[in-house]
Amino acid sequence: MAALFCFAALFLMTSLSPLQVSCSDRDPLHDFCVADLYCPLLNNNDYSCKPYPNVTIDDFVFSGLLTPLDPSQSTSGAIATPGDVNTFPGLHTQGFSFAQLDFVERGLISPHTHPRASEFVYILHGDLYAGFVDAGNRVFARVYHAGEVMIFPRGLIHWQLNVGRGRASALAVLNSEKPGFQIISLSMFGSGIADEVLEKTFRLEAETVDRLVKFFTPIAQVVKGN
Amino acid sequence: MAALFCFAALFLMTSLSPLQVSCSDRDPLHDFCVADLYCPLLNNNDYSCKPYPNVTIDDFVFSGLLTPLDPSQSTSGAIATPGDVNTFPGLHTQGFSFAQLDFVERGLISPHTHPRASEFVYILHGDLYAGFVDAGNRVFARVYHAGEVMIFPRGLIHWQLNVGRGRASALAVLNSEKPGFQIISLSMFGSGIADEVLEKTFRLEAETVDRLVKFFTPIAQVVKGN
Amino acid sequence: MAALFCFAALFLMTSLSPLQVSCSDRDPLHDFCVADLYCPLLNNNDYSCKPYPNVTIDDFVFSGLLTPLDPSQSTSGAIATPGDVNTFPGLHTQGFSFAQLDFVERGLISPHTHPRASEFVYILHGDLYAGFVDAGNRVFARVYHAGEVMIFPRGLIHWQLNVGRGRASALAVLNSEKPGFQIISLSMFGSGIADEVLEKTFRLEAETVDRLVKFFTPIAQVVKGN
Amino acid sequence: MAALFCFAALFLMTSLSPLQVSCSDRDPLHDFCVADLYCPLLNNNDYSCKPYPNVTIDDFVFSGLLTPLDPSQSTSGAIATPGDVNTFPGLHTQGFSFAQLDFVERGLISPHTHPRASEFVYILHGDLYAGFVDAGNRVFARVYHAGEVMIFPRGLIHWQLNVGRGRASALAVLNSEKPGFQIISLSMFGSGIADEVLEKTFRLEAETVDRLVKFFTPIAQVVKGN
Amino acid sequence: MAALFCFAALFLMTSLSPLQVSCSDRDPLHDFCVADLYCPLLNNNDYSCKPYPNVTIDDFVFSGLLTPLDPSQSTSGAIATPGDVNTFPGLHTQGFSFAQLDFVERGLISPHTHPRASEFVYILHGDLYAGFVDAGNRVFARVYHAGEVMIFPRGLIHWQLNVGRGRASALAVLNSEKPGFQIISLSMFGSGIADEVLEKTFRLEAETVDRLVKFFTPIAQVVKGN
Amino acid sequence: MAALFCFAALFLMTSLSPLQVSCSDRDPLHDFCVADLYCPLLNNNDYSCKPYPNVTIDDFVFSGLLTPLDPSQSTSGAIATPGDVNTFPGLHTQGFSFAQLDFVERGLISPHTHPRASEFVYILHGDLYAGFVDAGNRVFARVYHAGEVMIFPRGLIHWQLNVGRGRASALAVLNSEKPGFQIISLSMFGSGIADEVLEKTFRLEAETVDRLVKFFTPIAQVVKGN
Repeated sequence: MAALFCFAALFLMTSLSPLQVSCSDRDPLHDFCVADLYCPLLNNNDYSCKPYPNVTIDDFVFSGLLTPLDPSQSTSGAIATPGDVNTFPGLHTQGFSFAQLDFVERGLISPHTHPRASEFVYILHGDLYAGFVDAGNRVFARVYHAGEVMIFPRGLIHWQLNVGRGRASALAVLNSEKPGFQIISLSMFGSGIADEVLEKTFRLEAETVDRLVKFFTPIAQVVKGN
Repeated sequence: MAALFCFAALFLMTSLSPLQVSCSDRDPLHDFCVADLYCPLLNNNDYSCKPYPNVTIDDFVFSGLLTPLDPSQSTSGAIATPGDVNTFPGLHTQGFSFAQLDFVERGLISPHTHPRASEFVYILHGDLYAGFVDAGNRVFARVYHAGEVMIFPRGLIHWQLNVGRGRASALAVLNSEKPGFQIISLSMFGSGIADEVLEKTFRLEAETVDRLVKFFTPIAQVVKGN
Repeated sequence: MAALFCFAALFLMTSLSPLQVSCSDRDPLHDFCVADLYCPLLNNNDYSCKPYPNVTIDDFVFSGLLTPLDPSQSTSGAIATPGDVNTFPGLHTQGFSFAQLDFVERGLISPHTHPRASEFVYILHGDLYAGFVDAGNRVFARVYHAGEVMIFPRGLIHWQLNVGRGRASALAVLNSEKPGFQIISLSMFGSGIADEVLEKTFRLEAETVDRLVKFFTPIAQVVKGN
Repeated sequence: MAALFCFAALFLMTSLSPLQVSCSDRDPLHDFCVADLYCPLLNNNDYSCKPYPNVTIDDFVFSGLLTPLDPSQSTSGAIATPGDVNTFPGLHTQGFSFAQLDFVERGLISPHTHPRASEFVYILHGDLYAGFVDAGNRVFARVYHAGEVMIFPRGLIHWQLNVGRGRASALAVLNSEKPGFQIISLSMFGSGIADEVLEKTFRLEAETVDRLVKFFTPIAQVVKGN
Repeated sequence: MAALFCFAALFLMTSLSPLQVSCSDRDPLHDFCVADLYCPLLNNNDYSCKPYPNVTIDDFVFSGLLTPLDPSQSTSGAIATPGDVNTFPGLHTQGFSFAQLDFVERGLISPHTHPRASEFVYILHGDLYAGFVDAGNRVFARVYHAGEVMIFPRGLIHWQLNVGRGRASALAVLNSEKPGFQIISLSMFGSGIADEVLEKTFRLEAETVDRLVKFFTPIAQVVKGN
Repeated sequence: MAALFCFAALFLMTSLSPLQVSCSDRDPLHDFCVADLYCPLLNNNDYSCKPYPNVTIDDFVFSGLLTPLDPSQSTSGAIATPGDVNTFPGLHTQGFSFAQLDFVERGLISPHTHPRASEFVYILHGDLYAGFVDAGNRVFARVYHAGEVMIFPRGLIHWQLNVGRGRASALAVLNSEKPGFQIISLSMFGSGIADEVLEKTFRLEAETVDRLVKFFTPIAQVVKGN
């Protein structure tokens, strides 16, 4: 019968798909609200709660980190295997998202911000040169080793670079279900900002800006933050 | 000169020590506020921010998980090595606390609640039977394996039991700086609630309640939540 | 015409009923949002606002406490007559729920928590031994008399026992529309947690645990928190 | 195809129109949620997000202040040209509403409150006698001139009177999408409160109250706050 | 020794008394923070937490409603006996304030707002004509009887008038520790707003305004909201 | 006597000056808390409330925009004249900060973020090419004219460039008292991030990175966000 409900609901969903509602990390009013991936309330950004009788312990288990993505497939030599609501429905309304970060030697998670979360990182393996910049333009960075924990304050630019031998990996936990993710290089050179702004911002010649725009624009169209 | 300031401040602190102010996890108004462990604002529960020029990258590094506590020293066969503001000052105002959990075989982290946080757990090693109970008195539990992630919704009773061979360990991250921690057995039988309440609550005979009170009261006086 | 709308909406509701959305106590964006009990937005946990022209003063009146439930019908000798959104639609989005508590002599409201609210209690009649336990395993309890007010901090275990002559009654007000309600005995012994966890948690023999599970499981299936 | 979606959605909307959901100013979970004015989620108070591909820069531009309303058309000689979500869809979920205030000589924006926002006002032109009253019954008022900024604390009664020569205008910005707006004179004398309450509240004779009720009731039926 | 601490702290308090810090109703980070009335942190508006070892059950008991104020001493024939943090220290940080309301026959709690709280009212005795006005200038009012519950949405103007025989009394609970309290008549005619504003706002002649100002100003200087 | 209090308080302040407390934009518990600039509670980041009797209407007036800074003195040809708590004490706890932006022809407010606020901008004079980039790397930008309003969502990179003839000016209002301010170019090239990170991030040669670091580092040391 759940299947029947789903069928009807999916039909409605198709009709409703141009609609989107906004929600936020907030104190829950229910014990939990497991995201119903088969019967989304509206379109790609918001979830209905799975019917209570259908919720099982499996909604609160995530095994995706057992098969992380391969960092050698990334141009920057680093990649994130995410565990968000789309892959772990029990996370919905609990105020968390997370990812395993994997790096080849000298691989870089490029400078970026999460406008809506602080970040906790535990080094599973290897050595990372990592840090953040505050609003007073001071950098706070050093090399972290396996078993150490770092913290990046909310909204500030930060990065991680594998400076050890061989691969490295880390576990990143953010305290928002939708922390946001804005990569500096792609936002600046891959989004279509007028050249005059880029030249004045970075004191670069027109041809350098042109080269960077050509390089980053196709990457930016593939990579989308959340 | 910072030392001089500290001296003066500590003197004031002594005078001020009966005072305590309350604070909460909230959107930060500053990039960060590193807890100043040498110059606490008031007494043992609240922190002043370290003066900005004295903040260094070391405030944002925690190495304490490299030397976790020994679970065989605990009567329950399980122990938490915490990383909170007292041991990691950069965590202050960032909305996180965390702990490494270590278990001997059949060791148990006893049923408890965190009134002010949800909990994310990543299994570093071994196999844990873990779960939570919701307000509808349904249990959600199963065995989790190394590399898997579990989530415990805020405020609900949950536990972890090592059901694998040999030791097990896990990394727990909570999304509040002060999540709270109330252990069911100690709160009920170790706090001094009148016997009539305990007997009626658990349908136990007076002598059983008496035995449990005698067992749990001294443990409860040692163990204090935060 | 409102009826017509309701008919159409209810039809949609039937199709949509596997869906559930999560909401929370928050600063209202409207003067009020009276819960529309005939046209619920989705299923049993969330409400749409009653159309503004249909809202009347009766939505802001609750007379249900004039006919409270009978505590002698409860095995524990105490019962709560609730006034929540389901019975008082004007409460929706106002950040309150409440109940009248009635007790026979020695009747007990069993130890429980409200993860999402503090509780204010005014004794209407009689004498109650009541209190709570904090995270440091200290109990705060005493006998309260008619006309006195008690407060239970959010998330902590608390209870009330009628220790006076004859019946007692009290008015409890909680500062969340959905405070949550987790009864310790039912959560522990009525939910299906593995026996090994229960035995180790409470230092009870297998047969005692078995007896308690048999007693509390059927009650737990009837009683559901909210 | 977007049009087709809208058609289907609007059909559903018609059926759903007695429904209304409540929302609030909160930390956004998305970068933005542009209000979809053609496909409202439910009825007149809440918006769905415009489909992401349809969002354009025009959603983030408001030109309505270029043609402000004429204050000489208002009985009080002052009028507000609002810029809220209905006229500026990109404002949705950003925590702002605003208005241009225009005054004829001696024109008055009558004493009122905004229960859910503080107010920032910048004088574009002219001289305004403006102020607010706090809960200790103290008035804070003076004449403000072009180029000056005033602030009205949240929830307190405030007003503005043009005391300069000729017209005056100002820009008011409030930090809530739905700040609320309750005009004292209309609420008291135009809403239908029983005469005995009005007479005792203001120490006015029955005939004066009667005259005021007759004057303000028709205005109150036209003017509706939001 | 606590006394000694208090002596030192009170000395500091004297020096610090021009200072005041602002705080708010928020999710607590501690189980509780009992207001320390003998050692206030700063001046009359904010409290430090009582030292944990000194907290007792008596901090969570309020007996002041056993001896309510006498409504016949009030010019309006109605009076509130408040239970706020000053008289009930355990309330601090729990998100509640409350009062018993007592009325002589035809006594009136004059129209007022609480900018920072919704209000729950339970009629202990008698019959009250009570209601509120929304931002659309609609009144929601009726006669409530003993045992009934009313709700006033946050920030909206509301009042209560005793229309039964003899005295009446009610219990009001607000969901903020500092809800604010702004009485319309005193704010308008007792605060010193320029006469031109008052005349235009209420369409009253100069002499009537003058009479009201003379009547309400001395009362306003005595009555202070909180 | 207030002066005497201040003297004593300032003495304490000197001793306490290494201390700093963190606060946030939150629902106020008081009608207002005017920042006491002469008696700061602790050091440079937090304010005590001015004693209530000393608060005057002047605390709620800001005249600093009558004498804006000169954009021709800035290397980028654009400058912000801020109105924050330091210059307008009544703003404290009201959830606003603001600035007048002045531009010479082709002057640029360089790409930057405000992690803790959305931004409302009203064009006072001239024509600005302005926009923001979202997390999907899409740019939303166009030319705005005098009298138009733009909105920048919280946390996203945005900028403004004067593309009209002659000077331009605008009024920016942010919905946080401390919105934060991180300038992309200075954070990246002026903070001391290791060259390898910069080269890999922007695909620039070592000598170009070296040139940018030399240019931006001294500027970054002068410009500090808040």
